[in-house]
Amino acid sequence: MECCKIKKRDEKEYKSLINRLNRIEGQIRGIRNMVENDIYCVDILTQVSAATAALNAFNKELLGEHIKSCVAKDIRDGKDETVEELVNVLQKLMR
Amino acid sequence: MECCKIKKRDEKEYKSLINRLNRIEGQIRGIRNMVENDIYCVDILTQVSAATAALNAFNKELLGEHIKSCVAKDIRDGKDETVEELVNVLQKLMR
Amino acid sequence: MECCKIKKRDEKEYKSLINRLNRIEGQIRGIRNMVENDIYCVDILTQVSAATAALNAFNKELLGEHIKSCVAKDIRDGKDETVEELVNVLQKLMR
Amino acid sequence: MECCKIKKRDEKEYKSLINRLNRIEGQIRGIRNMVENDIYCVDILTQVSAATAALNAFNKELLGEHIKSCVAKDIRDGKDETVEELVNVLQKLMR
Repeated sequence: MECCKIKKRDEKEYKSLINRLNRIEGQIRGIRNMVENDIYCVDILTQVSAATAALNAFNKELLGEHIKSCVAKDIRDGKDETVEELVNVLQKLMR
Repeated sequence: MECCKIKKRDEKEYKSLINRLNRIEGQIRGIRNMVENDIYCVDILTQVSAATAALNAFNKELLGEHIKSCVAKDIRDGKDETVEELVNVLQKLMR
Repeated sequence: MECCKIKKRDEKEYKSLINRLNRIEGQIRGIRNMVENDIYCVDILTQVSAATAALNAFNKELLGEHIKSCVAKDIRDGKDETVEELVNVLQKLMR
Repeated sequence: MECCKIKKRDEKEYKSLINRLNRIEGQIRGIRNMVENDIYCVDILTQVSAATAALNAFNKELLGEHIKSCVAKDIRDGKDETVEELVNVLQKLMR
């Protein structure tokens, strides 16, 4: 895989991804505050569960956009290595 | 579940949890940088995968400590509702 | 871990577990029929998804019963190694 | 999604999928035997974990083949609805 491949995302997708990441960062900081304030484990575990779900939702959005744009375009252009790359990344994501 | 239950964690566990969260926050910020710099989807997905694994490791550590301390102690003290609570939180975590 | 440790489950729990396993076996056989009849991948993937969810539900039920009976009892009896064992099995299940 | 769409798989892929399913069916039957013989929960949970991993491996193989054949072909043929369908099935699989 070459380094620093670039993908220009459209404004709406870009904002949606950044918003998701800002919220996730806030969730992680919230969890750290809970640990710092000696909050009960189960209450923290519930927040971690929410942060994991948010990260998973980000993952799905990015993956969906990737397939609809990069993968579809590359297949049309005859760059079949993108198919192989997608299959490999899915193997990792579906552990 | 009562609000704001407290758990005093020992120094070593506390530091380990905070370190994990600091690293995860750094990973999330790194992912946002990648989106801001139009980095290729697959490279971002790989980083998200690493952040998810780190969050999962935090989860396991916290859960393990919870069982060894809170759950074991409460059972010994006859507070059987902590068992029910643990089973419920596991149902959520194992989705 | 010693070999062939035994646990007598009560009638209701036993039947529930066996029923779940019978249904899962039927689902796996159904998926094989689909492959044998050259059914479209996406339709098979949907069934695999259902079978995975059923296996996960079995897992949760068995784990919940384990904690409520074996783990709680062993802690009360001072056999703290069951706590360690539970933490280890959860590490595996939460991969 | 239309009913009973067909996909002719090549001999090697077909055999690999069927072998995986036969093994998984055996694993499920093995787990039922364990329940019938009152085997200790943790030993059963370990087997369930193995069966889940095997089902996941089947899933990945089928999905990989689907993308390399059906999805790639349909995109080349201008049938873009297969992309949408793939994205939807991945949302379900990545829960």
